[in-house]
Amino acid sequence: MSLSLGELAVRFGCELRGDPDARVQSVAALETAGPGTVTFLANPRLRSALGGTQATAVVLDARSAAQCPVAALIHANPHATFARMAAVLHPLPPATVGVHASAVVATDAVIDPTAAVGPLTVIGPRCRIGARAVVGPGCTLGADVDMGADSRLVARVAIEQGVRLGARVLVHPGVVLGSDGFGLAREGERWLKVPQIGGVLIGDDVEIGANTTVDRGAIGDTVIEEGVKLDNLIQVAHNARIGAHTAIAACTGIAGSTDIGRRCMIGGGVGFAGHIRICDDVIITGMTMVTRSITEPGMYSSGLPVAPSRIWRRTIATLRRMTREPGQDDDDE
Amino acid sequence: MSLSLGELAVRFGCELRGDPDARVQSVAALETAGPGTVTFLANPRLRSALGGTQATAVVLDARSAAQCPVAALIHANPHATFARMAAVLHPLPPATVGVHASAVVATDAVIDPTAAVGPLTVIGPRCRIGARAVVGPGCTLGADVDMGADSRLVARVAIEQGVRLGARVLVHPGVVLGSDGFGLAREGERWLKVPQIGGVLIGDDVEIGANTTVDRGAIGDTVIEEGVKLDNLIQVAHNARIGAHTAIAACTGIAGSTDIGRRCMIGGGVGFAGHIRICDDVIITGMTMVTRSITEPGMYSSGLPVAPSRIWRRTIATLRRMTREPGQDDDDE
Amino acid sequence: MSLSLGELAVRFGCELRGDPDARVQSVAALETAGPGTVTFLANPRLRSALGGTQATAVVLDARSAAQCPVAALIHANPHATFARMAAVLHPLPPATVGVHASAVVATDAVIDPTAAVGPLTVIGPRCRIGARAVVGPGCTLGADVDMGADSRLVARVAIEQGVRLGARVLVHPGVVLGSDGFGLAREGERWLKVPQIGGVLIGDDVEIGANTTVDRGAIGDTVIEEGVKLDNLIQVAHNARIGAHTAIAACTGIAGSTDIGRRCMIGGGVGFAGHIRICDDVIITGMTMVTRSITEPGMYSSGLPVAPSRIWRRTIATLRRMTREPGQDDDDE
Repeated sequence: MSLSLGELAVRFGCELRGDPDARVQSVAALETAGPGTVTFLANPRLRSALGGTQATAVVLDARSAAQCPVAALIHANPHATFARMAAVLHPLPPATVGVHASAVVATDAVIDPTAAVGPLTVIGPRCRIGARAVVGPGCTLGADVDMGADSRLVARVAIEQGVRLGARVLVHPGVVLGSDGFGLAREGERWLKVPQIGGVLIGDDVEIGANTTVDRGAIGDTVIEEGVKLDNLIQVAHNARIGAHTAIAACTGIAGSTDIGRRCMIGGGVGFAGHIRICDDVIITGMTMVTRSITEPGMYSSGLPVAPSRIWRRTIATLRRMTREPGQDDDDE
Repeated sequence: MSLSLGELAVRFGCELRGDPDARVQSVAALETAGPGTVTFLANPRLRSALGGTQATAVVLDARSAAQCPVAALIHANPHATFARMAAVLHPLPPATVGVHASAVVATDAVIDPTAAVGPLTVIGPRCRIGARAVVGPGCTLGADVDMGADSRLVARVAIEQGVRLGARVLVHPGVVLGSDGFGLAREGERWLKVPQIGGVLIGDDVEIGANTTVDRGAIGDTVIEEGVKLDNLIQVAHNARIGAHTAIAACTGIAGSTDIGRRCMIGGGVGFAGHIRICDDVIITGMTMVTRSITEPGMYSSGLPVAPSRIWRRTIATLRRMTREPGQDDDDE
Repeated sequence: MSLSLGELAVRFGCELRGDPDARVQSVAALETAGPGTVTFLANPRLRSALGGTQATAVVLDARSAAQCPVAALIHANPHATFARMAAVLHPLPPATVGVHASAVVATDAVIDPTAAVGPLTVIGPRCRIGARAVVGPGCTLGADVDMGADSRLVARVAIEQGVRLGARVLVHPGVVLGSDGFGLAREGERWLKVPQIGGVLIGDDVEIGANTTVDRGAIGDTVIEEGVKLDNLIQVAHNARIGAHTAIAACTGIAGSTDIGRRCMIGGGVGFAGHIRICDDVIITGMTMVTRSITEPGMYSSGLPVAPSRIWRRTIATLRRMTREPGQDDDDE
């Protein structure tokens, strides 16, 4: 794929300062870009890196354009514009339409003729695979899974019965959707399993990272609304709800029935207690322990930041001294 | 499936207040229940929600029964009784007995004639699959895996050589049992792998959540005793032992040789150091950092709870001031 | 496999005190060893356990040898020597060379004739599988994956297009290599996916634990250098770099573009912020929140250690009091 800067400017609504006939074949990072590439500058604080770039063109905003030593593609949102250009210059290899001979597909599954089902994949009874959807190799879909148009299971995804995915959902390898929630009733010293009869509902344009798990509802659905982006190794427990356009970084855990608002940004390794409610537009920094509901938009944190161990030990000792009751001895904690 | 309230009362040992001929087809949540459903009330603090229920019947205890506007199924343990009813009203679809034509089964594996082996599953040499056991699609079992009666691997489970599962063990997708423990010996700047020759022993009635990993012992077994319930994305390292009827929520990590007692309840995201011992009947709240053995039953915690970031920064600054040595400058930490 | 102590001493460079014709068949732990086994003592503080051992021989250092009641194999590094003996006494079962009939292999993939490709595995176009490499059952390899000599994918590993593995790389079940990084550009309230066009480069002698995920670079590679050892359920984000011979315990998360030095030892459940740099020879204890770069070798920590919940609550209350502004009320946090 090769495009001229003139084509890029027209297609992505940029103002071009430079030769419209110059051509680019790929995208690159600002510092390591070579000829034939287009790169971008989104953070004005990195503007000093512009000077040395070897890129053919840089996508940037009007304020940074004056310092650009090569062709400038000016746009108010350089990062998003760059993302669109990258998708055009680096398209996914086309999937092979049709069902691979080694796939095991239930006779009453409905596979759109434009969909692709890869090798060694299992599609259960009554599944519906939408137009242009791609089910990669090694996936297992239980009964009654509904997969919207243009959705893609990259490889080795497990989806249990009755899970519904919207359009343009992208699911990375190792993901499990619709596993049983952790529902237990105590009886004497034993735990009795509470059957998990709810489902999972995944909205349009959701992306789910590798080895993330989303449990089905106990009763009623676990819901991931449109545009949500989940990173790798995240746990979404039964009956959680994640509001539209919220992004959550890796290793975060969301306990049962917790409801996270729209447009939230959640760092990595965050833990949410169950049955709490986070309002819209909340930002939570990494490894925060969210023990209660949050009702005001804003930024939230917790945790001790890293320190040399000898200083950390002193901090802990100080805290212990401060909270010890008179007469309490060390063994108590 | 449809059952009369009279049948439910007899079968599950409830006292019925209401029409024994009324019938229910499914279970539901108290707030959203409609006609033809049975629901439950376990937490007396939610008793006010009883008034508006549209359920046909509610399982509850004697103290709450007076306020129940519909049929009451009275039992001292409403949650467990509800769980049993749900299992009857919402049975799992029956697995197809026999070995699917696409499965790859070693000739010397012993599959009980009442067991089910799903499509695209691999069963290694000398495996023994017990009566009525179900191995779902996409699983891989190494050599000498022993799977007890009525156990079930839902889908895409990987079990390495020699792992032994008891009866009625339920394993969700993405689980790995018997992977090598993290055993390393240092030699100069390099790490030398220490062969992991132990096994994994899983007791009866254990449930293991999606994408959880249980490593084999270095020497000797990693042991998960009967009735243990593990949620998703949990790590159990080599030679750990988890005592009977302990329940552990998602994203918790248990380091090597740590020994957790019976009937413990461990929250999500908890981390256990290696080579420690937690006694029976310990409750640990979510995200706690368990750095030492615990010898007394009770509830344990750690971690800073979430706060607005500006307040959190002040807390951290205060702690730093308190633990700074005289003359120490900021750069030191 | 059975070896005489004389053979062991010669082969592994030990001084032998004892009968060179005595034979051992397996390795064992010091406390539970029986006749016919060899065990080891690495930690001098455990020397008192020597007295009761039933092992045929013990690998230990010269200082401990005097207290050894059975045959002593004396070596300056007992743990590493024991690891080598265990590898000889407990060899992996040989893989079946060749491609299993049920595997789906692209016609232009290049599989070394000494390599083994297991059942129900998918090998994509133009993959190169090196000499004596083993691809276990249920793996999926995308296009252009390069796997070095003697590397092994145990089972059910997913590798996406273009990932390169060195020699002697060992990858455990459930691992995902080369999944898309979490690259998003904001556009109004929506997130736009930034195509992830970089790769993953894994050096020689790397080991990767079960269900760990390594994302491909956004642009340029995510790099895991030679000799790195990763435990289970670890997240390595796009463009991270992990220096040679660093070992990282389970459940740790490394955010994007973070650069970890050589010979570091990272505990379990540690979280690294993105775009930071950790120098060589850093030790970080479990569950530490690494929010900034570390420029000096040494040991680092954070987090509150476990305490009885009533004491923990008092600690938190004390901290709140200390950081409350005059006139601020409780609701603020």
